[in-house]
Amino acid sequence: MTEIPKNHPRYESLSLREEITRCVEAGITSRQGLIAHGRGEAIDYLIGEKSLPTALEAEDAAVALLLTAERPVISVNGNTAALAPKGIVELAELVDAKIEVNLFHRTEERIAKIKEHLESYGARGVLGLEPNEVIPGLSSERAKVSREGIFSADTVLVPLEDGDRCEALVAMGKKVIAIDINPFSRTSRMAHISIVDNVIRAIPNMIKSANELKYTRVIDLLFMIECFENKKNLKSTVEEIKRGLDEGRLEESQGYSKLSIW
Amino acid sequence: MTEIPKNHPRYESLSLREEITRCVEAGITSRQGLIAHGRGEAIDYLIGEKSLPTALEAEDAAVALLLTAERPVISVNGNTAALAPKGIVELAELVDAKIEVNLFHRTEERIAKIKEHLESYGARGVLGLEPNEVIPGLSSERAKVSREGIFSADTVLVPLEDGDRCEALVAMGKKVIAIDINPFSRTSRMAHISIVDNVIRAIPNMIKSANELKYTRVIDLLFMIECFENKKNLKSTVEEIKRGLDEGRLEESQGYSKLSIW
Repeated sequence: MTEIPKNHPRYESLSLREEITRCVEAGITSRQGLIAHGRGEAIDYLIGEKSLPTALEAEDAAVALLLTAERPVISVNGNTAALAPKGIVELAELVDAKIEVNLFHRTEERIAKIKEHLESYGARGVLGLEPNEVIPGLSSERAKVSREGIFSADTVLVPLEDGDRCEALVAMGKKVIAIDINPFSRTSRMAHISIVDNVIRAIPNMIKSANELKYTRVIDLLFMIECFENKKNLKSTVEEIKRGLDEGRLEESQGYSKLSIW
Repeated sequence: MTEIPKNHPRYESLSLREEITRCVEAGITSRQGLIAHGRGEAIDYLIGEKSLPTALEAEDAAVALLLTAERPVISVNGNTAALAPKGIVELAELVDAKIEVNLFHRTEERIAKIKEHLESYGARGVLGLEPNEVIPGLSSERAKVSREGIFSADTVLVPLEDGDRCEALVAMGKKVIAIDINPFSRTSRMAHISIVDNVIRAIPNMIKSANELKYTRVIDLLFMIECFENKKNLKSTVEEIKRGLDEGRLEESQGYSKLSIW
């Protein structure tokens, strides 16, 4: 692993790369997950590597939806487990959601390692190791879910999800909350609430929001959800990205530093 | 490795992912290279996954520069070796350039493997294994170069380069041609000719161009180089990316335009 100086202008981004790379070595994240992480990095440059107002709005609505859900589940994959394990566990406790591991490149071994990883951050009863149901209309390993988890959930939070499964969950009649930095992805287009933000910012934002909203009256939470317009939110996000290009935000994000960002 | 159906709308992109992942397992590409590949993928979505007219223009000028150079060198890293080994060897022969392996995450072992990999495609005398010079003002392993290669080159083609080294090569007085899909990167801003294109398209384009230009009079090649304006070219590329966002090109690139719910 490369040692990154704390004063490096790209310290956080480079540290995350090292961490997710370490998680590949630990068998938690797949190699393809590294490519996905890179795609996220590039789109985060466009967004300016900060939570947009539209993202904060979506994060609040998402928390309201999780708090009012009867059987909320947080679906965790290799990248989420690598980037936000502590936050996922804390958020699950705050909104009383179950955690289920579901992988695109599924292996029993990797699910066990992710379960272990999350448990080392205090997670309890992580599901996914013994799937006993299948998501209808979805081929591949991702269809395997547990009856007491994703299968019977009324609301599912899917950070860094793939479009097919997001669509299949929506088709099952579940409320789907996505965290996907790409506002153009099928996941973002298919989800009921699409959080266009980096998962490392989205989860802490949602924890903060959950701490504020957990004592709010259900009727007020339902009103918040009612007021949230996902399509409008996504459109505003795309407009913001275009503004970023005009302002050369991507250029700034490259941190024209003495040190290389690659 | 996952088997990808030939009829998959994203077949080429997914195959490249499998190939570069395979090259990590083979010790040719670094894990960090996978993240860089992902960044490239996302920006390629913005560009529309095709060579823009501005890229074709830069590729022609680059070939003219390589053909008129006295000591041209093509610098190869792990990602380039994974994505375009055959093309690099063919281009090097066409423009009579030396090939030198230079890595950000340098290990003797990886350089040897890349050399071997390129030789399996017919490369001869690949440099980089025994560096005997150093690029001034550049810390880290990337500074190590060979006297008969990059150090004494008058023109260097650097596909998928990092900003610092590109800057250092320019500071050495060399003509630098970059292939970098990010028009905002330091590399793109520092190079004399910045090819904003995916390396898997840029190299074949340059081979085609070299076959056309190799019998062109030097004076005409020099005129071509003279006429090329890098900053103007980059600006036009950024404008094209913005047009792409307006047209929802990134959305289409996800391979589901018919499915779009907007």
